[in-house]
Amino acid sequence: MKHSFDDTIIALSTPPGESAIAVIRLSGENSIELVDKHFPAKDLTLVKSHTLHFGTLQSLENELLDEVVISIFKAPNSYTGENTVEISTHGSPYIVSKVLKNLISSGARQADRGEFTLRAYLNGKMDLSQAEAVADIIASDSDESHRMAMQQMRGGISKRIQTLRQELIDFAALLELELDFSEEDVEFADRTRLKALLHSIFQEIESLKASFDLGNVMKNGVATVIAGRPNAGKSTLLNALLQDRRAIVSDIAGTTRDSIEEVLNINGLKYRLIDTAGIRMTEDTIEAEGVERTLLHVQNAKILLYLFDIMHSSPEEVETDIQELISKNHLNPKTKILLLANKSDLSQNIDLDDFREKMGDAEILSISALNNDDVEDLKSKLYDSIISGKVTEDKSMINNIRHYEALQKANESLQIALDAMNAGTSTDLIALDIRNVLFHLGLITGEVSSEDLLDSIFTRFCIGK
Amino acid sequence: MKHSFDDTIIALSTPPGESAIAVIRLSGENSIELVDKHFPAKDLTLVKSHTLHFGTLQSLENELLDEVVISIFKAPNSYTGENTVEISTHGSPYIVSKVLKNLISSGARQADRGEFTLRAYLNGKMDLSQAEAVADIIASDSDESHRMAMQQMRGGISKRIQTLRQELIDFAALLELELDFSEEDVEFADRTRLKALLHSIFQEIESLKASFDLGNVMKNGVATVIAGRPNAGKSTLLNALLQDRRAIVSDIAGTTRDSIEEVLNINGLKYRLIDTAGIRMTEDTIEAEGVERTLLHVQNAKILLYLFDIMHSSPEEVETDIQELISKNHLNPKTKILLLANKSDLSQNIDLDDFREKMGDAEILSISALNNDDVEDLKSKLYDSIISGKVTEDKSMINNIRHYEALQKANESLQIALDAMNAGTSTDLIALDIRNVLFHLGLITGEVSSEDLLDSIFTRFCIGK
Repeated sequence: MKHSFDDTIIALSTPPGESAIAVIRLSGENSIELVDKHFPAKDLTLVKSHTLHFGTLQSLENELLDEVVISIFKAPNSYTGENTVEISTHGSPYIVSKVLKNLISSGARQADRGEFTLRAYLNGKMDLSQAEAVADIIASDSDESHRMAMQQMRGGISKRIQTLRQELIDFAALLELELDFSEEDVEFADRTRLKALLHSIFQEIESLKASFDLGNVMKNGVATVIAGRPNAGKSTLLNALLQDRRAIVSDIAGTTRDSIEEVLNINGLKYRLIDTAGIRMTEDTIEAEGVERTLLHVQNAKILLYLFDIMHSSPEEVETDIQELISKNHLNPKTKILLLANKSDLSQNIDLDDFREKMGDAEILSISALNNDDVEDLKSKLYDSIISGKVTEDKSMINNIRHYEALQKANESLQIALDAMNAGTSTDLIALDIRNVLFHLGLITGEVSSEDLLDSIFTRFCIGK
Repeated sequence: MKHSFDDTIIALSTPPGESAIAVIRLSGENSIELVDKHFPAKDLTLVKSHTLHFGTLQSLENELLDEVVISIFKAPNSYTGENTVEISTHGSPYIVSKVLKNLISSGARQADRGEFTLRAYLNGKMDLSQAEAVADIIASDSDESHRMAMQQMRGGISKRIQTLRQELIDFAALLELELDFSEEDVEFADRTRLKALLHSIFQEIESLKASFDLGNVMKNGVATVIAGRPNAGKSTLLNALLQDRRAIVSDIAGTTRDSIEEVLNINGLKYRLIDTAGIRMTEDTIEAEGVERTLLHVQNAKILLYLFDIMHSSPEEVETDIQELISKNHLNPKTKILLLANKSDLSQNIDLDDFREKMGDAEILSISALNNDDVEDLKSKLYDSIISGKVTEDKSMINNIRHYEALQKANESLQIALDAMNAGTSTDLIALDIRNVLFHLGLITGEVSSEDLLDSIFTRFCIGK
C-alpha cells in the first residue's frame, strides 16, 4: 500500500449489482477539478462545500455517461479530510464501470481497500482505533456489536488510552529531565508519587484487559453449547429457544446433524447456540472421533447448557457426566455451566434438592423444552450470566485482539519498570521501559504506527471505504 | 399498487450487502420533517435544497443508529418532484434495517418497486417512456443499449410521439368543431390537406415501427448462430471471435456442449454468439431431438454464420445444407446468411467462384479461424450487416415491445380513418378513429394511462428506484 497524498483515489462505495443508485467516491486535492472536467452543467470548482448538483456526466469526448447527482465536500470538512466528491449514478454495473474507466483515464487511481479511511487517519480525522471501528460498524450484526463499534468510533476507547498515555508522558518528561541533569544527581520526579501513578495505570490497563472477554463476546457472540445424553431433549430445547426468531435462524448456513449452530438474539446480544447431538458420557464412546469433535465445542463454550431428563436421570449420573468432562479437560474452568432438568411437564413433583446437593454451586433450572415452560426464564439467565452488572453506559470496552495484545505488552513493560524502581535501578533504564509502555499504548490509537500495521488493518476493509 | 401522495415512502436504494456506504431514500411532502425527528445535529426543515448535512441519526429514544450524511432535495427540484431525503449510512445491513425500522415507526412506508419513478411520472417530472428508460438504463450492459436508453430517458422518443400527437390533436379539434356545427354542414378541415396529414403521420409511425427491429437488437443483442457440419471449425471460430474478449466471456453462465452461448461485443453492439455443435444436415439425424433444439436457434437467428471446410466441401453440399434449412422452415427469411469458407490456411488457391455461382446472392467470406485470418474482416461484416447506414445520431428508435404494439394499434386506427375519408364516411366516425389513434399514441408517453398499465411497468423496477 502506497500512501501518496498527491493523487486522487476513486472507488465504487456501494455494493456491486443492479439497483436504483450507485455511489462512486473520489478523494484527493484535485478530485473536484477532475470530476468538473466531466460535468458540463456548472463549474464545480466554484460551488460551496456540502452542496448537491444535478447534471450529466460525460466523457472527455462529450459522450453521455449518465445523469448524476454530485456531492461536494471540501477539505477539511470531509470523511477523509481531503476534497471529496461523491457521484450518485443509476445503479447499472455497466455505467459504474464506464464512469470509473473515464475518471481513471482523467487521472484518478483505483483506491485500495480501506484507503479512504486510511487517509482519514493519516489526515488526523480519526485515530487508529476509531478507524478500526469503522470496519466493525459495517460488520456489526447485533445491537451489542453495533453499540460497541459505535462507541469505539466515537472515541470511547481512544479517550481512555490517551489519558493514560498523557499521564505517562508527563512522567517520562520528568525522568528525561533528570537524565539531562544526571551529573548533578537531582530527582525531579518524586519516586513515591511516581510509583503510585505507575501502579494505578497498571490497574487501569488490567481492568481494560479484563473487559476484553466481555467485549469480544459482544462483538462475536456467546458460544453456547447444548450438551447432554441422547434423548435429554436437546433439539427440542434448541427449537424452543429459537421459536420466535425463526426468520433469523433460516439465514444461517451450514447445519450438520452432529453439530448444528444457530444464532439466538437475546436483548440484542448474540448467542451462537451449538446443538451437540452426539455426546454420550460413557467410557466406550467418548473416544470416538465424532464425539471428540463435539467435545471441542464444549471446550470452547462460554456457556454449557447441560441438559438431563428429570424422569430418567439420577444426581449421580449427572455428577459423573460433568466430572468426566472436567477430568478429561473438556471443560474450560471459566465456562459457565447451567444444568437443565428437562421434561418438567412429565413430573408432578420436581425435587431438585438431591441434584443441588450433588452438584454444589452449579446452577440448576427445571424446564419443559416441549411445552416451552420456563424457557423465557432460561433466556433471562443466559443474558444475566454474560451481562449482569458488567456493563455501564460510559464504560468503554476492549473488543479487538490487537488492542488486547498491545495492552498486555504495555503492562509487561510497566511491570518491569515497577520492579526496576523497587530494585533501585538507574533512571535511564526505567525511562526506557516507560518509552516501551508509551510505544505499545500508542499502537492502539495509532500515535505510533508502521506501514505493516496499517496494511494489516486496512486490508480488512471494503473497497470504497 | 396504491398511489397515495400523502405519505412518505422509504427504501434502500443501493444493493443489499456489506459495503462502504448504503443510501436510504425517502420521498413525500413530510419526508424532511420525518427525518429531522431523528437528526439532532440541526433543524433540517430550515436548510436549503441541495445541501448535505453530517450528523448522528438516532431513534426517538435517543439511541445512536449511525453517523450519517443527509442529502436534502426540496420539491419540485428532486427526482420525484416531492421533498426527498437521502440518508448515506455505513454499509451495514444491520444498520440499514435498523434505520428503515425506525423511520417506518415514525410514519414512513416501505416503497413499492419503482414507486419513486412512478411518483416522478405522476408529478410530471418525466413521461412514461422516459420512466421506462430508467429501468433500461439500470439494465443496460453494452454501449448501444446504454446509449439508446439514455436517449429515451432524455426524451428522444417522447418528442417524436408528442409532435405526432399534437398534429393529430389540432386536426381533431377542427373535426370536433365541425360536429358542433354539423347542422350547418360546414367543413372547417380541408379534407385534402387532412388526408395528406394523416398519410404523413401514418408513414412516420411506420418508420418508427421499422426501427423496432434494430432498436430491439441494440437493446437485447444480435442472435448470431454458428452452424455447419461437424469439423467445419465452429468452435475454433467461436474462440477466434472471442479471443480479445475472454474476460467478458467467462462472466456468462450456462454453457453446455450442444449449444454454447457467449457474448461478443463489436463496437459496443452486443452479439449473442451461439455455437450449435450438433447440426448435421443428413436426413437420418436431422430429426433427432438434440438437433431439433439446435435448429430452433437457427430459426431465431438474426444472423446465421454457416461454416464449411473449404478443403472438403463442394458447392453442391453447401447448397443442399442451406436449402434443407430453408425447405424445413428452419430459416427465417429475414435471417442474414453469411457463408464462411474456413481453413483458408490449408489451401493455396482459394476459388470461391463455384460457390458464389451456386449460392446466388449469399455473401461468402474465406477465413482461417485457426490462424485468425480475416476474422477482423468477419467482425466488420457482422457489425455492418446490423448497423450500416441505419443509425444517425439524432434518430430515435423504438426498442420497447409495448411501444411497438401501441404504434401498431395507432396505425390500424389511422388506416381505418384514411379508408373512411376515402369512402366519404361521416365526420363523427372519422373523429372517433382519430381519438383511437390519440389514445394509443398517448399510452406510449403516458398522457393516457391506467392503473394496470402502470403496475405492469413499474413492477419491473428495483425497489428504491
